[in-house]
Amino acid sequence: MIRLDDLNRNGLRIFQDSRLFCFGMDAVLLSGFALVKPEEVVLDIGTGTGVIPVLLTAKSQNALFYGLEIQKEAAALAVQSISLNNLNEQVFIVEGDIRAEPHFFKPSQFDVITCNPPYIAGGGGLKNLSCAKSIARHELLCSLEDIVKAGAALLKPGGRFYMVHRPNRLADLLCTFRKYGLEPKKLQLVHPFANKKPNMVLLAAVRGGRPELDVLSPLIIYSETGDYTEEAKKVYNG
Amino acid sequence: MIRLDDLNRNGLRIFQDSRLFCFGMDAVLLSGFALVKPEEVVLDIGTGTGVIPVLLTAKSQNALFYGLEIQKEAAALAVQSISLNNLNEQVFIVEGDIRAEPHFFKPSQFDVITCNPPYIAGGGGLKNLSCAKSIARHELLCSLEDIVKAGAALLKPGGRFYMVHRPNRLADLLCTFRKYGLEPKKLQLVHPFANKKPNMVLLAAVRGGRPELDVLSPLIIYSETGDYTEEAKKVYNG
Repeated sequence: MIRLDDLNRNGLRIFQDSRLFCFGMDAVLLSGFALVKPEEVVLDIGTGTGVIPVLLTAKSQNALFYGLEIQKEAAALAVQSISLNNLNEQVFIVEGDIRAEPHFFKPSQFDVITCNPPYIAGGGGLKNLSCAKSIARHELLCSLEDIVKAGAALLKPGGRFYMVHRPNRLADLLCTFRKYGLEPKKLQLVHPFANKKPNMVLLAAVRGGRPELDVLSPLIIYSETGDYTEEAKKVYNG
Repeated sequence: MIRLDDLNRNGLRIFQDSRLFCFGMDAVLLSGFALVKPEEVVLDIGTGTGVIPVLLTAKSQNALFYGLEIQKEAAALAVQSISLNNLNEQVFIVEGDIRAEPHFFKPSQFDVITCNPPYIAGGGGLKNLSCAKSIARHELLCSLEDIVKAGAALLKPGGRFYMVHRPNRLADLLCTFRKYGLEPKKLQLVHPFANKKPNMVLLAAVRGGRPELDVLSPLIIYSETGDYTEEAKKVYNG
């Protein structure tokens, strides 16, 4: 059930397990949206199989990446992928719980935080609360607030937090970031087609930033003919 | 300097004074976005020359509208327009300050509140703070928070608040509404062209609503050829 997937970027590949949550377009879009400057130190919260830090290595110079993952199996696959891609000196996986962050990291340690969190508030009527996929999709082991609170403490003043989420949580997103001193600065809605509702939102917030949100032009994934748009191709190809 | 403008809807016309703030696309879009059910009672905060209630009479049945305006000259023009359109029994103009709302209205009196507020936070380096246009554009006499706070007190539980604002204030908007128990429920970004950044945001919030935001497909005003899009025409023609 474990497979090796090509990321179509700099020859990078990643191990995935179909029994666990597999990365989707969301992770690719977030890594396209996030800006990592040379030599910055980055934390990916809930890194899963490590796809976001692995993709970000391709568009950054001499940056260091940490991936925090609570699920043992996913963290183990992430370590294997990093080794396979010869990124052992650039990407480090930490198995642990974001709610206990002071044990792993120092306050204000990171320049950048990225996160593709569980999207669904609470358990949402789930029956199998221990299922690995449920943990990745539902706020079972951590809420949006847990993530933002911990991230705010780990981010340097002026540091940037990049998150992908669902538009139906937009009010939660903006209000929770602001509550913890992370000012929403840049927002992009992602639409499957130009005339359809958005199905993803990309947010950049700055610790201690001045209130002023730049809402970008929308990112459209497919043209009317069903092909990727030029802008979507650009994101996919880094 | 006073002119009479045709609203292109049901023969409605409105007096405007070029020395005061004249209504723009924003007011038309907000009246297109707002839903007023039969016999509901509606308050328009900062009604200016009354364009929003006047436009809303054309798309509602037996609803009653109140328009609150702090500037004497604008309120006087609104009264003239209402008389001209024979709406004296349906639209009422109150001259006064929203920050003193308990003097004018009863708590939880309204089913719907609409508002096209000043967009620019604070005085923004203005020199002439008493200028009528500055008062309409800058948060000089009332802030977003003043408006939302007063509106929340005047709205029935389950009542709807419709506002048009600028995308750079989106975080302020969502967080302030939520702070006063008005849950953002529907949001539409308005783009001048399909591939441009949005320049307006339309928001519907519900007093005591459940958290879950419906982000609509974007409203595009002009097609590539510079003509109004079909959806924009629909809004303009009510």
